[in-house]
Amino acid sequence: MKEMKPFTTIEEMEADTARLKEIACELCIDTYEDRKKQQEPHCKFGEDGICCRICSMGPCRVTPKGQYGICGADAHAIAGRHYLRMAAAGSAAHSDHAREIAHVLHKTNANGPYTIKDPDKLIANAKEWGIETEDRDIYDIAHEVAEVGLMEFGKPFGTLRYLERGTEERQKVWDAEGIAPRAIDREISTSLHMTNMGNTADAEVLVRQSLRVGMADGWGGSMMGTDFTDILFGTPTVRSTEGNLGVLEENQVNIIVHGHDPSFSEMIVLAAESKELLDYAKSKGAQGINIAGLCCTANEATMRHGVRMAGNFLQQENALLTGAVEMMAVDVQCIFPALGRLQECFHTKFITTSPICRIPGSEYIEFTADDAEHAYEKAKALVKSAIDNYENRDRSKVFIPEHRQDATVGYPTVQIIKELDGVTNSHIIDDPRGSYKPAIEAIKSGVLRGAVAMVGCNNPKVRADYSHIEIMKELMANDILIVGSGCASQAATKAGLLRMDAKEICGDGLKRVCTLVGIPPVLHMGACVDISRMMLLVTSIAKDWGVETTQLPIVGCAPEWMSEKAVAIANYVVATGIDVYLGIEPQVKGSTQMMELITEGTRPICGAGYVINKDPHELVQSIIAGIEKKREALGI
Amino acid sequence: MKEMKPFTTIEEMEADTARLKEIACELCIDTYEDRKKQQEPHCKFGEDGICCRICSMGPCRVTPKGQYGICGADAHAIAGRHYLRMAAAGSAAHSDHAREIAHVLHKTNANGPYTIKDPDKLIANAKEWGIETEDRDIYDIAHEVAEVGLMEFGKPFGTLRYLERGTEERQKVWDAEGIAPRAIDREISTSLHMTNMGNTADAEVLVRQSLRVGMADGWGGSMMGTDFTDILFGTPTVRSTEGNLGVLEENQVNIIVHGHDPSFSEMIVLAAESKELLDYAKSKGAQGINIAGLCCTANEATMRHGVRMAGNFLQQENALLTGAVEMMAVDVQCIFPALGRLQECFHTKFITTSPICRIPGSEYIEFTADDAEHAYEKAKALVKSAIDNYENRDRSKVFIPEHRQDATVGYPTVQIIKELDGVTNSHIIDDPRGSYKPAIEAIKSGVLRGAVAMVGCNNPKVRADYSHIEIMKELMANDILIVGSGCASQAATKAGLLRMDAKEICGDGLKRVCTLVGIPPVLHMGACVDISRMMLLVTSIAKDWGVETTQLPIVGCAPEWMSEKAVAIANYVVATGIDVYLGIEPQVKGSTQMMELITEGTRPICGAGYVINKDPHELVQSIIAGIEKKREALGI
Repeated sequence: MKEMKPFTTIEEMEADTARLKEIACELCIDTYEDRKKQQEPHCKFGEDGICCRICSMGPCRVTPKGQYGICGADAHAIAGRHYLRMAAAGSAAHSDHAREIAHVLHKTNANGPYTIKDPDKLIANAKEWGIETEDRDIYDIAHEVAEVGLMEFGKPFGTLRYLERGTEERQKVWDAEGIAPRAIDREISTSLHMTNMGNTADAEVLVRQSLRVGMADGWGGSMMGTDFTDILFGTPTVRSTEGNLGVLEENQVNIIVHGHDPSFSEMIVLAAESKELLDYAKSKGAQGINIAGLCCTANEATMRHGVRMAGNFLQQENALLTGAVEMMAVDVQCIFPALGRLQECFHTKFITTSPICRIPGSEYIEFTADDAEHAYEKAKALVKSAIDNYENRDRSKVFIPEHRQDATVGYPTVQIIKELDGVTNSHIIDDPRGSYKPAIEAIKSGVLRGAVAMVGCNNPKVRADYSHIEIMKELMANDILIVGSGCASQAATKAGLLRMDAKEICGDGLKRVCTLVGIPPVLHMGACVDISRMMLLVTSIAKDWGVETTQLPIVGCAPEWMSEKAVAIANYVVATGIDVYLGIEPQVKGSTQMMELITEGTRPICGAGYVINKDPHELVQSIIAGIEKKREALGI
Repeated sequence: MKEMKPFTTIEEMEADTARLKEIACELCIDTYEDRKKQQEPHCKFGEDGICCRICSMGPCRVTPKGQYGICGADAHAIAGRHYLRMAAAGSAAHSDHAREIAHVLHKTNANGPYTIKDPDKLIANAKEWGIETEDRDIYDIAHEVAEVGLMEFGKPFGTLRYLERGTEERQKVWDAEGIAPRAIDREISTSLHMTNMGNTADAEVLVRQSLRVGMADGWGGSMMGTDFTDILFGTPTVRSTEGNLGVLEENQVNIIVHGHDPSFSEMIVLAAESKELLDYAKSKGAQGINIAGLCCTANEATMRHGVRMAGNFLQQENALLTGAVEMMAVDVQCIFPALGRLQECFHTKFITTSPICRIPGSEYIEFTADDAEHAYEKAKALVKSAIDNYENRDRSKVFIPEHRQDATVGYPTVQIIKELDGVTNSHIIDDPRGSYKPAIEAIKSGVLRGAVAMVGCNNPKVRADYSHIEIMKELMANDILIVGSGCASQAATKAGLLRMDAKEICGDGLKRVCTLVGIPPVLHMGACVDISRMMLLVTSIAKDWGVETTQLPIVGCAPEWMSEKAVAIANYVVATGIDVYLGIEPQVKGSTQMMELITEGTRPICGAGYVINKDPHELVQSIIAGIEKKREALGI
């Protein structure tokens, strides 16, 4: 057997970061590590969620001397309101992103630049919504689907259409418990209203609305964002790529796309493929144009084009610090405002493109659905401007870390089914095609113990990527399959856990499954909006198995989350009946009632809750124990 | 001339509060004054707006040692985001209230309990929106108007319908500056998205979106809330009432309605008028049923029924402390959670009625549009339960302060026109009917110097009601007419400034106008949603005058504001071209750029901005100077 290429250790990643940090020091510019130190100690009132800034009588905070805000709100009301506002803002972020995608879908036409890449998925969605598809132009269908989708944000009556995709049991729970969301934006506005001064002060009611506004994300905005993105840009398929800063090229024009909304990055990728611009790059002395991704824009682009991933959230400054980036072009969410000052130290052009995300120090070139028809031209102009910037690269400042890892990505639910069908075809497992039964059998038999959805961000409150990687390795060793998205799946990429041969560090059962099915032990499912794919995966497994989602030995884990989006996600995952293991504490510790509510109080409502532990080794042990407990209850 | 009844001084009001505070002390229960002391000193970071809790990497704050949050956000981004979130939450509160009213309108039918009380206004609104009205049942029209109205919250395309009510110049400004709001809830969600971690960090962009989301309130939710409320419960007309805690009755069943949404209180008022319940009250030894209002529910009920006003925001605990309240029934917004603990000291039943406003310590009896058909029955049951509670009143604990003042209320725009028409009819001023020309002539001639919209809350950061009353008296002395709403108009009520004879303390010009037209010098226009009435008033005056809103010697003043709703309001008033004078600083002081933006930076956008001064005497002088400057520019 030929020697395995080594995995990248966390220490090696940290050494690269340390070298880039030295460059920052030489340039007298701060990075997040400096700013973190400057911010420590964090305000305890804020960390514990017992600071209230909801009206201008305050700010108020809960102290031994003052147990109540001026209005009389106690720790539970204060922490609960802040928690609900985080969930609402997270839901707004995901959903507003989806709205933009829906508007792009509404602007598609056969002449482009935005076209329909997955007409089958479009037609399936149209049929699901009762939209006529026979003898109709595909773009007429697309526009009607977009219109119906857009109405989900603001329809005056009824609950969300996608809820019907849930198991029958879940639909009953959501209705009975009052957590079935009405129009997406209504739940967001209502959440703000409930938490406005002099409204809801009952923590349980606030937690229930957090579930509901989370559902408006996971079974509303995010799900639509994912589906419409697949329709527009193609449902991802398996492909090979690479990840980590080593994907930046010494002798090419490096353009980094960063953010979350692929309708911008798709145009950049397309533009960079044009012969005209490639020739232009060569005329400027570059060997090519290298598009690399950061954060979830990377996940979107890698799943559909194999675009390589430069890194995740806490790597965004590092990418610029390489000195080798001609352009950092961003869309929305998770963009450090720090990039505005950092780019001044380099030749890098920092481009903002969305009215949602305007950052001082950037050049603003607007890309919106309103101006969809010019998107490709504008993308070409941007790529050209990056090429023109290549000659400005100061090679004495360049340091590109060597580390990069191969990765196999692109496992949306249909791809997973396809892989499983491959196994079925091989007659090794005797099951019907188009179902999750082979996977279910593997779980039932104990070959696989269960599955974990590894999701979420980076957070400097814990060692960057360490919790992600440590937890994943331990799960793999314990025959637990991983589906990943967002920054979690990029942590895995950087470590090498998306390599096909990563099965070698798995337990025997998982290794056998990986070999048999031909998959890596960590299945990259996409961006953070794509956690909706995981909800459908779990739903389908429950249906194929004939049990409830709450019974499955499948859980979610966000060991390094930081965004409000993660709060929205955690809420809809719990509402879907799946336990969520968190490595960062939600900021409600100052309220015993809120701590109880989010860990235990949601269980009578929807059969799941949070388990919180900042120690990744303890957290993974509790995940394994949780999975084994579910198995035991199922008698498997 | 017979001797004038004295006005109530601030010292007399404070003496009443002090006596009630003694009762609280005897009962060992805290009031807002205690809690305020316990909260002092307030956190300086929060007060200055340079604390960020938008993601869980933090909380972060701007200090000499740490000028940037971990993500790199600076003071301007941090303060700007918080400011926009306040505006968005305020807009959400008003608009979600309006949505509920729209749903009630959608549930109207001829058999009640909710019916159409102002069919003319309904038909006018229907015609404005292009809805067929000929030969149609009034309820069919109502339902269609409600549906079209509800679509304003979530329509996928276009901007708000009511914007067309603006002057041509304003409509151009709103379009050109990108502050014309799209669907109401979209602007709210988009605001949350923009302020979510890693999105907009440019303070000017955040301030522009604050204007836009404010517009979604003033020319969207609030305007619809006001119009639909008039359609449902009747457009207010002039009527006499009384205000201050002295309206509570020693020998009657006292029921206080408190909050903002009149669809609940209207049913209570109706129920309390029923002979059956009146007889029942008498059978229980009471002389009658006394409904009194608090906060904006009081304003709504007094404008349509003459229901007496027990007080404004900071009087809510006082009302309970009288020991004479059988029931405090609340709907939404500005309800102290403190009431939950306070009611335990008394026989008072504390009833919450809205899913938006759930408070521990209350009994929850849900009133929503979903169950509109049972609203009257439920209201009757509540009134009966209050009557049953009468015998539990502990008369040894009762202290009802004596102070109460007569007041004339009920001046929506149509009523103002009607009063002016009365003058026209008298042939003293030669002008066409149905216009503001008589008022404009009075301003042009200098008999009136201008007008001020006195609005906003109470805030213990300043002496309760003192700023309101001092500013109003000074304006009156300077021949400046006042239109009031919300807690401001209740402060005026308590002082006696809504009395017809309050003209005696006005300058000669204003006194002459009051005499001639037969109005008090402070015109009570309603609740805080009714500030939309003021926008239409100003718009009509500008149209009738043939000048722009920015040119009028008319400004807004919120000397004691505290709610996020006030931030939304201040933004739409400024966007309408009217300067806003604030007595409480918005929490952005830690950002020089934000301070500049909200005071001067909005002027090039929409021709108006804030003037901020915590000293009411200085604030009123700057108002007068501002009005005189506008007059000078007009050459009058």
